[in-house]
Amino acid sequence: MIIAMKPGVSREEIKKFAAELEKQGVKIDFSHGASQTVLGLVGDTSAINDEALRVNRLVEKVIRVQEPYKKANRLFHPADTVLDLPTTGKRAMIGGGAFGVIAGPCSVESREQIVLVASAVKKAGAAFLRGGAFKPRTSPYSFQGMGCAGLDLLVEAKKETGLPIVTELMEISQLELFEDVDVIQVGARNMQNFNLLKELGHSRKPVLLKRGLASTMTELLMAAEYVMAGGNDRIVLCERGIRSFDSFTRNTLDLAIIPALKKKTHLPVIVDPSHATGIAAMVPAMSKAAIAAGADGIIVEVHNDPEHALCDGEQSLTPDSFSELMNTLRKYAAIEGKTI
Amino acid sequence: MIIAMKPGVSREEIKKFAAELEKQGVKIDFSHGASQTVLGLVGDTSAINDEALRVNRLVEKVIRVQEPYKKANRLFHPADTVLDLPTTGKRAMIGGGAFGVIAGPCSVESREQIVLVASAVKKAGAAFLRGGAFKPRTSPYSFQGMGCAGLDLLVEAKKETGLPIVTELMEISQLELFEDVDVIQVGARNMQNFNLLKELGHSRKPVLLKRGLASTMTELLMAAEYVMAGGNDRIVLCERGIRSFDSFTRNTLDLAIIPALKKKTHLPVIVDPSHATGIAAMVPAMSKAAIAAGADGIIVEVHNDPEHALCDGEQSLTPDSFSELMNTLRKYAAIEGKTI
Amino acid sequence: MIIAMKPGVSREEIKKFAAELEKQGVKIDFSHGASQTVLGLVGDTSAINDEALRVNRLVEKVIRVQEPYKKANRLFHPADTVLDLPTTGKRAMIGGGAFGVIAGPCSVESREQIVLVASAVKKAGAAFLRGGAFKPRTSPYSFQGMGCAGLDLLVEAKKETGLPIVTELMEISQLELFEDVDVIQVGARNMQNFNLLKELGHSRKPVLLKRGLASTMTELLMAAEYVMAGGNDRIVLCERGIRSFDSFTRNTLDLAIIPALKKKTHLPVIVDPSHATGIAAMVPAMSKAAIAAGADGIIVEVHNDPEHALCDGEQSLTPDSFSELMNTLRKYAAIEGKTI
Amino acid sequence: MIIAMKPGVSREEIKKFAAELEKQGVKIDFSHGASQTVLGLVGDTSAINDEALRVNRLVEKVIRVQEPYKKANRLFHPADTVLDLPTTGKRAMIGGGAFGVIAGPCSVESREQIVLVASAVKKAGAAFLRGGAFKPRTSPYSFQGMGCAGLDLLVEAKKETGLPIVTELMEISQLELFEDVDVIQVGARNMQNFNLLKELGHSRKPVLLKRGLASTMTELLMAAEYVMAGGNDRIVLCERGIRSFDSFTRNTLDLAIIPALKKKTHLPVIVDPSHATGIAAMVPAMSKAAIAAGADGIIVEVHNDPEHALCDGEQSLTPDSFSELMNTLRKYAAIEGKTI
Repeated sequence: MIIAMKPGVSREEIKKFAAELEKQGVKIDFSHGASQTVLGLVGDTSAINDEALRVNRLVEKVIRVQEPYKKANRLFHPADTVLDLPTTGKRAMIGGGAFGVIAGPCSVESREQIVLVASAVKKAGAAFLRGGAFKPRTSPYSFQGMGCAGLDLLVEAKKETGLPIVTELMEISQLELFEDVDVIQVGARNMQNFNLLKELGHSRKPVLLKRGLASTMTELLMAAEYVMAGGNDRIVLCERGIRSFDSFTRNTLDLAIIPALKKKTHLPVIVDPSHATGIAAMVPAMSKAAIAAGADGIIVEVHNDPEHALCDGEQSLTPDSFSELMNTLRKYAAIEGKTI
Repeated sequence: MIIAMKPGVSREEIKKFAAELEKQGVKIDFSHGASQTVLGLVGDTSAINDEALRVNRLVEKVIRVQEPYKKANRLFHPADTVLDLPTTGKRAMIGGGAFGVIAGPCSVESREQIVLVASAVKKAGAAFLRGGAFKPRTSPYSFQGMGCAGLDLLVEAKKETGLPIVTELMEISQLELFEDVDVIQVGARNMQNFNLLKELGHSRKPVLLKRGLASTMTELLMAAEYVMAGGNDRIVLCERGIRSFDSFTRNTLDLAIIPALKKKTHLPVIVDPSHATGIAAMVPAMSKAAIAAGADGIIVEVHNDPEHALCDGEQSLTPDSFSELMNTLRKYAAIEGKTI
Repeated sequence: MIIAMKPGVSREEIKKFAAELEKQGVKIDFSHGASQTVLGLVGDTSAINDEALRVNRLVEKVIRVQEPYKKANRLFHPADTVLDLPTTGKRAMIGGGAFGVIAGPCSVESREQIVLVASAVKKAGAAFLRGGAFKPRTSPYSFQGMGCAGLDLLVEAKKETGLPIVTELMEISQLELFEDVDVIQVGARNMQNFNLLKELGHSRKPVLLKRGLASTMTELLMAAEYVMAGGNDRIVLCERGIRSFDSFTRNTLDLAIIPALKKKTHLPVIVDPSHATGIAAMVPAMSKAAIAAGADGIIVEVHNDPEHALCDGEQSLTPDSFSELMNTLRKYAAIEGKTI
Repeated sequence: MIIAMKPGVSREEIKKFAAELEKQGVKIDFSHGASQTVLGLVGDTSAINDEALRVNRLVEKVIRVQEPYKKANRLFHPADTVLDLPTTGKRAMIGGGAFGVIAGPCSVESREQIVLVASAVKKAGAAFLRGGAFKPRTSPYSFQGMGCAGLDLLVEAKKETGLPIVTELMEISQLELFEDVDVIQVGARNMQNFNLLKELGHSRKPVLLKRGLASTMTELLMAAEYVMAGGNDRIVLCERGIRSFDSFTRNTLDLAIIPALKKKTHLPVIVDPSHATGIAAMVPAMSKAAIAAGADGIIVEVHNDPEHALCDGEQSLTPDSFSELMNTLRKYAAIEGKTI
């Protein structure tokens, strides 16, 4: 930790200030410049209260050299974390050389619909089935999902196809309903719902953690750290577009976070091109770009009849266009030495 | 609702498309341009599924002319909503000509601290006491608030001073603990926690709803609509800074939302200059700007000893500087014809 | 063009208002809703002054259905525009199935440097040489480029290698110095330097137009329209990262603009992964993502000795890493049916 | 300057690296932590090439403790800079206790219009006349200003009223036409037109420098530094709204930059509420907020007939509403101890 003192603070004052800090168990190195002095704190600085320092009248700037996350930090865990679920059929993996594809409708609408889509995406090569039962909607007057009935239908689709299911949890009290769910999705709007994250830390279920609309990379990793601090380290990070000043797409897909995350963390990273763009015609281009940028997978919306979807039809691929995309992605995966 | 058809769609196709729509109970007016046709839908369009329309292969653009919120809309409720709590002493009001000041520490830290600060802010003219018991923190390793014990201390401070208390609720299950709380705060990160909003719709407590870091004005009003749809219309909106590209302040305080909200909604609007800037020295300037811009109040952090605060000391005023600010704000209020 | 009248405006007033508009040569269709009336203007609306309409006391909203650009609009020019420069060696193309690679150092530093880098990038397969002579720098105290001497060295490198040269013009008066330059680059900060754009409209040189840091897609196309309105339609658009709230990369590369631009315009689109990320290690991932997303080329910084570069060494590839990247890009191009 | 070495770099390597740096005339203090070493550079670090350091394979982070601007820095020039123009009538001042109001139409449209508006704003208390002769417009098909004829009319209005004139320069070659202009405005889109800034550094005219749409506070100060580096220190900074994700106003007015700039620089700071909001009805609220936040003045658009303005009528006050605003601002100025 580095502390730049304000210009004009006397050596005497700095000495006293440093003595106080050293009582907290750190060693201090001094660098006296012409207009100001800089302190380098060595040792365990995790107990030092940055905020108190920043408000100190002698201090100009406090800079932490180390990242604030530990369990998610690749520095301390160099090996890649891989999600690898036991299945009866094809291995359901994300990371470790596997490009995991999660596909399915925005919301579960009926037994016919979810089984039909599940079978189609399985045939095309998806390793996981997605589908929303509880839906976060901007308007209280929009369709809010089928709820528990939707969860039941997802489980039926899983039985029919063998695909593990990924679905979104909206609040802690729903957790008991998620027993048969394979991967719990935390949506972008809940990325900093800290109580929910803590609770998931005590769960044994893998968590798909979506980046918030205006969350920095560090905040995403701190959200993962919340879950990991509770003991659950089976986390998949998901870039799904951030909010920027332009609106030709629903959000701005920030693909550079993939190589950036790969450097900072050992957790697998996937991309959601459907929510990022909001436009079905752009999903193939952005899916290819995701694998090219180094992603470990994608989560894609597929609907048998997008024109009549109850939710997000604009961004849904048809089973045919999804199948075509998968064929192209296999060629990309081959170049990158990955399997789909 | 207006629908622009794609260039080149035939009159025949448009006729069929319109006939389908008319089955949903709307009347359609046609405007045939040289390169494309525009449809104006008249009648109750609330049942029309925009999303399905947008994905229709014949449609280029769908534009809703009316705002998507009804209960929060000033068009249908021209008179200002005012928060006016019964108290033993000074009236605790926000709106209706009252500039309501909510003040107190970021977190409750001890009985002494909260009572001391409560008394000081009351003396200076605050109408409400704020204080966090449950704290949303970016890091799992930071102080998370005193929890229930903090709530109890707030209630004690209320007993001592008569000030109604405002504190943040982080999840639905905490609601039963909030019986003695006067105003429930929904934090920026929970502005789109829709289940929480629905639950608060069934509560009879006033809600202080903070704008999310990257939420549009319309989304803020839709969040209020969620609560109001449940029957609770005692809502105070709060601008607390949005995320922009610059970082000289913690967030970017968007004061123009005050006159904009005043036009769109009847709900009162306050400003949080402490979280918006994150810098105590800027709080007075931004508080004055808030009243000048038309706000109905402010929520300000005050701490008896900012250098030793467990949280957000950087942005806390001392009781003395708060008192000085209140004196200036009274002069501003006089110009604006408001009372503090 | 669509005009939504304010709620409560009388039929009488609307009639008068519409009569005024019709004097400007348009035909008006009316759609009378319960709370407001919507007007559809048919005919040539280009002369109608939107701004005056918006300020009219009877008007709530004015919506233009058609895009404000004509010459850049794919609707009126369906066929792709391709940049194809005559060269003595390999064809220098961008678009039309060619993935054009522009490579070279941030700034020209010496004869040895530019010739060495030019030869290396040519050998690796680049079709154009880039290099800055006039450099826009944030600080007046930073290296500002070699100026005219730099241009001369670029021309020498062109003679040695046959590669057409791409370099940045910073102001109109420099135009006469650019006679031997093949493609004139307009930097992100000059994207809305309208006088410069107008001047380039009268030039016969191709223009590489970089998207501004905070420019919308429509503004980028309007900037192109400025050049095209003057008669010069040889324009290449370039996405180079926008400013967002996060800072793990220098800017946020917005790759979804590629399919979006491809739909809206016939102009070729390339990507600058070097400036977008500012980090050499991320350039390969983002270059691959660019071709996967449908780009017609990239512009990449290559320096023989990044540690001693006078400018932007952080984001420069070495000739070896560039050559390796080109080998991978050829595989991607093969999948996409493009040539490098 | 502080350099954090990468974790794992050996003491030996650090020693060599530091020895190289010391050759550039700095002294180095070492702080050896458990996982990495931090270097503190003391002495004149202005010649050190940050960029080369950042790309060095041993270096993790480079942090400059001091601001990169010198002449604009309040640390080295504590006293406020004040703009104070000689006039025949009322003093035309910005800063130093004077709240300077610049008012006038977006564009000069005719002799009658400019003289009428000039007289009206003078009567209401404005100290400067604004008016555009050369207009930067997003579309090549919009009105581009009257050009030289507009300048002549401004000079006539100045003769009639005695008000000094403020108008925008769009390119260097126009400078010779600006002899009778009192304050040269650099628009937001030209804030980083570095050649223009350098040229203005050699001018003796005061410069009104508008913050770019996506420029940080530091970049604004660096732009001022460009002008000051050339010897011209009569600069007025202007906040005019930044681009954010929301669109209920044209831009997002960032008023917190006023106290932030006041701390960092000695230059006066004004606000443009007209361009920031784009909505006339919001201009009074934002003007009052500007003075409350500590601004030294405002620049406001006033038009005799906004409904027929050739440009930006939506955001123009009428002379009457401007006069009313001035009356309120005088009350605010009295509280703040300023004169209008």
